[in-house]
Amino acid sequence: MREFTSLTQIAALVPDLPAFDEAAAAAAQDRQMQLTKPPGSLGRLEEFAAFLAGWQGRERPQMETLQALEFAGNHGVCAQGINPFPQDVTVQMVANFKAGGAAINQLCGVAGAALDVIALELDRPTADFTELPAMSQAECLEAINRGAAAVSDGADCLVLGEMGIGNSTVSAALAAALFGGAGADWVGRGTGADEDGIARKAEVVDRAVTRHAGLSPLETLAALGGREQAAICGAVLAARMARIPVVLDGYICTAAAAPLYAADPALLAHCLVGHTSAEPGHKRLLAAMHKDPVLDLGMALGEGTGAALALGVLKGAVACHNGMATFAEAGVVGG
Amino acid sequence: MREFTSLTQIAALVPDLPAFDEAAAAAAQDRQMQLTKPPGSLGRLEEFAAFLAGWQGRERPQMETLQALEFAGNHGVCAQGINPFPQDVTVQMVANFKAGGAAINQLCGVAGAALDVIALELDRPTADFTELPAMSQAECLEAINRGAAAVSDGADCLVLGEMGIGNSTVSAALAAALFGGAGADWVGRGTGADEDGIARKAEVVDRAVTRHAGLSPLETLAALGGREQAAICGAVLAARMARIPVVLDGYICTAAAAPLYAADPALLAHCLVGHTSAEPGHKRLLAAMHKDPVLDLGMALGEGTGAALALGVLKGAVACHNGMATFAEAGVVGG
Repeated sequence: MREFTSLTQIAALVPDLPAFDEAAAAAAQDRQMQLTKPPGSLGRLEEFAAFLAGWQGRERPQMETLQALEFAGNHGVCAQGINPFPQDVTVQMVANFKAGGAAINQLCGVAGAALDVIALELDRPTADFTELPAMSQAECLEAINRGAAAVSDGADCLVLGEMGIGNSTVSAALAAALFGGAGADWVGRGTGADEDGIARKAEVVDRAVTRHAGLSPLETLAALGGREQAAICGAVLAARMARIPVVLDGYICTAAAAPLYAADPALLAHCLVGHTSAEPGHKRLLAAMHKDPVLDLGMALGEGTGAALALGVLKGAVACHNGMATFAEAGVVGG
Repeated sequence: MREFTSLTQIAALVPDLPAFDEAAAAAAQDRQMQLTKPPGSLGRLEEFAAFLAGWQGRERPQMETLQALEFAGNHGVCAQGINPFPQDVTVQMVANFKAGGAAINQLCGVAGAALDVIALELDRPTADFTELPAMSQAECLEAINRGAAAVSDGADCLVLGEMGIGNSTVSAALAAALFGGAGADWVGRGTGADEDGIARKAEVVDRAVTRHAGLSPLETLAALGGREQAAICGAVLAARMARIPVVLDGYICTAAAAPLYAADPALLAHCLVGHTSAEPGHKRLLAAMHKDPVLDLGMALGEGTGAALALGVLKGAVACHNGMATFAEAGVVGG
């Protein structure tokens, strides 16, 4: 696995990365037209089949070997009182993931995805970004490389998720810094903030964005993001290098990958978004990043849960694509 | 399995049918509040878990034994030239279902659902409803009883689907007769109608609705529906008697069950709708029937494909509900 040595290197990666295989996708689309159904009648399942074909580089994509990565981090901005839960909950939930008791464990079980949980220095939170950059560039690179190293080269598809008390505020700060708008446009309830808590989050975001203005997208990741956000960026890049399509989760996971989009939208071309979160900033972020999620079920848990659930739809798309008879094979009129 | 002997009997069934088990649903909701996640953060997955708990009558619903029923019928109204494909395609597609080559076969495979295909007198289409009632009440009852008899009492959940050249026009006629509006409000492309074809469908629907006005909802089913629509009604009722929650598919399947809703909305209380079809009448029909589908993926194939795909979401909901640790079990703060 390639190791990244500078943030500026990442922004300039696109020409060196595998591109969408237009021939494989066109062959997949041609196959879809011959399957025993009216053309287009499988809707987005046809789009997903061609997307997976193009990124995996084969007319018949596979959804057999599925990996889910869950990155956890702690955040110095919690000193600003932006979360009703103590940071210990991050450690406790990591233990819950490892014991198999969380929602993501059950949803990976249904989808047949292997879950790897990567806790990133939970006893050493990032700096409070209202006062300092959350991470130095070296710390950010280290987390990016941890994320990149966690990707299994043999996966057919990769789900990304996160856990970190305070990281809905981190996400709002990243989104505001990268795409504009005030803190109030990007914050929401998170893990359970009340109205006062939401106002406090907005004020904290505004202060942080003002303090760290004028940075490049990847410098913004270091200044405002957490280790789990940086690790998600690393995993997105490593997946691309291995031609593995990625399913991002909800608001926090999408915001984590947003610095890559802001650096060059092509860096996220191999990424779907699994679901639309109930966290209100997510819809705004999806519009800014031109992503149309697979599911919309009012979920707002994180952990990769919406992305893992979306695997079922992608498996259905691939099963239809690979398993259906053609008009000619079935002797059905209409081909 | 109970046999139905008159259409008027069906409309009056509600007091004799199993009701939603409020205690089981409340126990399920209480459990959801103790699981290791912020309350409500699994969104509709929590709603689905409580729905399945209430209809199955147990705090921990199961999604292990899954049945899919695919009913096929042919329609006399095809004489009006409302479909670009010949009725032979219904027979050909039934052979494709039986050989495992259709989309529904693949999606049942992914979901782990057993598929039963029931062809209803394909060589004897219903009458052309622009001239006569499509079915006599006796024929309609026979198809209802065929549908009811096909339900496996041991299923945890039942998916319903259909196939029948011409049946998007049949569905538009049922919807217009039951819920008002003109034919043009309810017709769409179906299997591939062009603009002229859509206009012809609307005109045929208007004529049929005028001819068969003033009937009860179940008489309307006989006058305008097909055998596969009647069989879907029978399966919905038999599932209710066995406390089996049902997932309806798209426009045609929802329209097939609509006479039950029009007779008494409580007859469909145990039914979810699997997806929103791209067929434009479906959204209008869902609003009239107060159903909020699970998925929205631009599909418009029928066969039960959208409902079968939705099983993955319901399996995820139940896996989280049954498999997650509580705050107390996991030692996580926040319970």
